[in-house]
Amino acid sequence: MESKSSIYISLKKTELIVLVCMICLSSLPNISCQTQNTGMANVISERKAEEDHRQDSADLLIFIMLLTLTILTIWLFKHRRFRFLHETGLAMIYGLLVGVILRFGVHGQRDLNNVTLSCAMTASPATILVNVSGQFYEYTLKGEVRDTDGQDVPDAEMLKKVTFDPEIFFNILLPPIIFHAGYSLKRRHFFRNLGSILSYAFVGTAISCIVIGLLLYGCVAFLKAVGQIQGDFFFTDCLFFGAIISATDPVTVLAIFNELKVDVDLYALLFGESVLNDAVAIVLSSSIIAYQPAGDNNHTFDGSAFLKSIGVFLVVFSGSFALGVITGVMTSLVTKFTKLHEFPLLETGLFFLMSWSTFLLAEACGFTGVVAVLFCGMTQAHYTYNNLSDESKDRTKQLFELLNFLAENFIFSYMGLTLFSFQYHVFNPLFILGAFLAVFLGRAANIYPLSFLLNLGRKNKIGSNFQHVMMFSGLRGAMAFALAIRDTTTYARRMTFSSTLLIVFFTVWVCGGGTTQLLSFMHIRVGVDSDQDNPITEVDGIERRGVRHEGAWPFRMWHSFDHKYLKPFLTHSGPPLTTTLPACCGPLARCLTTSQAYQSGGGWHDEDSELIGSDGLGNPMYTDLSISAVTRSSSSTSNHLYGPTVPSG
Amino acid sequence: MESKSSIYISLKKTELIVLVCMICLSSLPNISCQTQNTGMANVISERKAEEDHRQDSADLLIFIMLLTLTILTIWLFKHRRFRFLHETGLAMIYGLLVGVILRFGVHGQRDLNNVTLSCAMTASPATILVNVSGQFYEYTLKGEVRDTDGQDVPDAEMLKKVTFDPEIFFNILLPPIIFHAGYSLKRRHFFRNLGSILSYAFVGTAISCIVIGLLLYGCVAFLKAVGQIQGDFFFTDCLFFGAIISATDPVTVLAIFNELKVDVDLYALLFGESVLNDAVAIVLSSSIIAYQPAGDNNHTFDGSAFLKSIGVFLVVFSGSFALGVITGVMTSLVTKFTKLHEFPLLETGLFFLMSWSTFLLAEACGFTGVVAVLFCGMTQAHYTYNNLSDESKDRTKQLFELLNFLAENFIFSYMGLTLFSFQYHVFNPLFILGAFLAVFLGRAANIYPLSFLLNLGRKNKIGSNFQHVMMFSGLRGAMAFALAIRDTTTYARRMTFSSTLLIVFFTVWVCGGGTTQLLSFMHIRVGVDSDQDNPITEVDGIERRGVRHEGAWPFRMWHSFDHKYLKPFLTHSGPPLTTTLPACCGPLARCLTTSQAYQSGGGWHDEDSELIGSDGLGNPMYTDLSISAVTRSSSSTSNHLYGPTVPSG
Repeated sequence: MESKSSIYISLKKTELIVLVCMICLSSLPNISCQTQNTGMANVISERKAEEDHRQDSADLLIFIMLLTLTILTIWLFKHRRFRFLHETGLAMIYGLLVGVILRFGVHGQRDLNNVTLSCAMTASPATILVNVSGQFYEYTLKGEVRDTDGQDVPDAEMLKKVTFDPEIFFNILLPPIIFHAGYSLKRRHFFRNLGSILSYAFVGTAISCIVIGLLLYGCVAFLKAVGQIQGDFFFTDCLFFGAIISATDPVTVLAIFNELKVDVDLYALLFGESVLNDAVAIVLSSSIIAYQPAGDNNHTFDGSAFLKSIGVFLVVFSGSFALGVITGVMTSLVTKFTKLHEFPLLETGLFFLMSWSTFLLAEACGFTGVVAVLFCGMTQAHYTYNNLSDESKDRTKQLFELLNFLAENFIFSYMGLTLFSFQYHVFNPLFILGAFLAVFLGRAANIYPLSFLLNLGRKNKIGSNFQHVMMFSGLRGAMAFALAIRDTTTYARRMTFSSTLLIVFFTVWVCGGGTTQLLSFMHIRVGVDSDQDNPITEVDGIERRGVRHEGAWPFRMWHSFDHKYLKPFLTHSGPPLTTTLPACCGPLARCLTTSQAYQSGGGWHDEDSELIGSDGLGNPMYTDLSISAVTRSSSSTSNHLYGPTVPSG
Repeated sequence: MESKSSIYISLKKTELIVLVCMICLSSLPNISCQTQNTGMANVISERKAEEDHRQDSADLLIFIMLLTLTILTIWLFKHRRFRFLHETGLAMIYGLLVGVILRFGVHGQRDLNNVTLSCAMTASPATILVNVSGQFYEYTLKGEVRDTDGQDVPDAEMLKKVTFDPEIFFNILLPPIIFHAGYSLKRRHFFRNLGSILSYAFVGTAISCIVIGLLLYGCVAFLKAVGQIQGDFFFTDCLFFGAIISATDPVTVLAIFNELKVDVDLYALLFGESVLNDAVAIVLSSSIIAYQPAGDNNHTFDGSAFLKSIGVFLVVFSGSFALGVITGVMTSLVTKFTKLHEFPLLETGLFFLMSWSTFLLAEACGFTGVVAVLFCGMTQAHYTYNNLSDESKDRTKQLFELLNFLAENFIFSYMGLTLFSFQYHVFNPLFILGAFLAVFLGRAANIYPLSFLLNLGRKNKIGSNFQHVMMFSGLRGAMAFALAIRDTTTYARRMTFSSTLLIVFFTVWVCGGGTTQLLSFMHIRVGVDSDQDNPITEVDGIERRGVRHEGAWPFRMWHSFDHKYLKPFLTHSGPPLTTTLPACCGPLARCLTTSQAYQSGGGWHDEDSELIGSDGLGNPMYTDLSISAVTRSSSSTSNHLYGPTVPSG
């Protein structure tokens, strides 16, 4: 939301000349409205725009080629069943290589033909009008140019050109990833472990954020005492670091879990936690930014500002949640009451547009689009999905799968690239060491105490081997990176960004690569081929126990309400409302019940289970509670959080 | 390619204050680096960036809502079999309504808090550095601000904000539309009428461009004499108008054709012509822009500049063609020699990225991305499609179908919006009348003489009723609009844009809406249900005659070369190269032939026909020539240019 003036330069326009003129400017202080090469300026700027467009295309082409290369290598790895390096790790390596080449290999000649005016003013408004002999040209603010570092980096122009506006990550690349996470969530396993997942995601992330923040604050205090830190690094910066680094990434580990068919409960815990804690981390970090003590440079504790931060957290989170759910519900109502499923293309289009509008709506209201999109995805999967035609079910799944795949690999290869192309890195070895330690301890403080507490209440205990796996599977990925790169204007944020980058690299390569070994070392049952019919009875057994136990009365009430009223109201499945609503609501119920619901009214359990059986996305939560006998066959196909068509996980 | 400084403002950044300051500036001439409200500027510009982001999201939301509404209404129309208004026409109407509301209904209060500096200089470079008490801020050129018109329009800020950078049309919205056209082209019918299609597309478009240009030049001369024209309008402007308005749009008419199952040859002629003449028009218009006589304001004929324009046309067209084909061929080689089809997601990802890279590559080389993408799509459909897994075939088709659908409806609703939101319209009734007449005569000069000449050589004559339908089905759509909006800086271009807009409206609503009536009036055979087996023999008969006749020796040679060498080299289908290459190339042939090709080697005809039968996209051209007996069953499903999953056509 805060699009602060950042030193990052977008790929769109004409900017490669800043360094040159920075050098000029440093030798010519306080030039007022001076012009070099007056006459040629217009022609040059036009030719330059054309030249830049070509250059931009070429830059984007680098990324496309990188992704293509990644895809081919992934194929090779998958083909050879080589599991030590996931596609995301690979994308980072390729990005890294290109970064090294751009940084040290290519020496672009400096374009000294460019004309730069400098204009001394006393403010930096968003727009400037320049009067050139009677004609007005509009200029917009691009950001502040700092000449603190920068100059020692060779070929800065070249590097700048492969750098995107960080808001692109938030507005274009993250939404499909997060939507896909919500949409592909296997809700049966998710809801079965809902209590634990919510504890890890909310309480755990808060614990992790605070522990990391405190540890880092100690580390920073020590470094300041030793004289290793050159800039400001406040406690809020430490907490901010704690918030962004607490967002775990499901991609790598879960792809391997999926391939190895690891225990479904472990899978559900890790996936559910990492999906939800992305949302928590993003709102937490924006709340920390909103924490501004009354005194301007007063970085002591301020009670009212703290309360305001908590208020921001609650408002933003619940607002985003509500918006996501509302658009999801609207989509399901529209798809239910129109016969749109006769035209799958229109249906898919509507589904896509409504999901996208969630994001825009949330951003327009000042909430967080990414969080709204997550809950929209979950609502769409729970309700709307049941109303879609078979073709649209496939289409929507495949579309978001592809978008997710492309966006994810783009972010990871971009991460690799930034290690060398980002020009304002602050690598402080002691701080990085401290950060690694803090992240490790923060994760431990999240998993172990919470698991202990949760086990007090769970019948289906989370074993210590599960806890160790969860501890080490807390990889950091796209979300941590996107949050860190969003604002790199201050010394503290740059240090945060550089450290985050290294932590992402380490966890993806080392923790991600070691997952297979860890699983066998921890004696985690792999090859739980839940697609076979054999272990179903057992799984089902655990499941029903789990549901009965974990599903305390609020969850049971919600399930019953959802099954009796919401599902029949929003979808074609479930019992007809005419049978569940009290008699006085008869006319309304008849009005809201479609003929499909009547048709399936006799055997409405079958309708549900058929949906589960067909693809595993459409299964209602807690179906098993009431229809455990019927779902025996259906649960067999729904034990993976991803459908069978997702090789990457 | 030319991203000229345009008065259009992109949606991205902060710009709603220009008008306010224009008024200020007009009263304060030659302010040098003067500042209003100095101290607050930084805070305001930051708050404003946030505010703008929200506003941008809200603006985009308007379009998404418009598209959603369009989809729902389309469904209603389709559901009720109401054929007078196509979805594109509907999208325009909704856009128009929103435009009217924005223009006359909403009166946004003017934000007088904004700070704008003005800075008098003597040139307008691409970047300005502003020195604010020691800190440097970078500003980039947004475009020239003209205060000629503008001020008489109320709420100009509001209207400006729903206006996009026109390059968005070229770089984001057109490529998927054009790629889809190439990818969904049913090549059998296309190649059967290739000679005629090429004549209409190349010769016909050139004729139409010149006729329209000449007629308009006469019209302009008359208007100048009468004193109805206030600005310059050169002959090149007339020709430019002729070029952009010669691009016909297949969408509306062909959707109706598809629904009514109109004669396949008529369908192929119209579709092929409108696909190719988009490419011709785009290159033609850029050649006309490149025509710059030696003298600066000398608008007389200049032979060398004319030759240069022709050179530009040839180089750009052939370069774009070559790039498109090359990336298509590369994709098919990659998909052939890897086992990527084991992982459909990777395959689809690769396909998408390679197709996109065509566009970027062409733009980076200075060719036309849109044209390259067209030929890439055709190559992908002809070769790569055969190598894809069944799942990827579906996925790629559905993905591009959806992108096409969304982009198309977006452009059409945007068109409706611009009629009221665009602020620099120049509506000249006489000129518009002349333009309508010129377009009508230009189309006639394209269709009738060429059809006469073609009929001299065709055995399967193009009947006069076909000619009349082709004459009236020359709707103008997305391409004409995108070319017209690209540059609206001069008086002539604004007049061109406004007239184009009206012509698009008229043809889409009137000609598009009257298609059904026209077909019955012209006694065109509808309901040719080529999906049934009954009329196949006849269709096949016509076809073979057509092919034999139209396929003169260069086409026959090409077919034989393609079938014997290219297809086996690039795909798994066709006869193994070991049987077609001379014996001396044995090792090479063995190396290039995959096991699939050997497997299908015995019955390679079947492989081909199976591909045709499965979906109709993968059919090789001229398959019928050699294997007419086998395709009897397969051709039954491939007589529509679109697959069966495309309700919108």
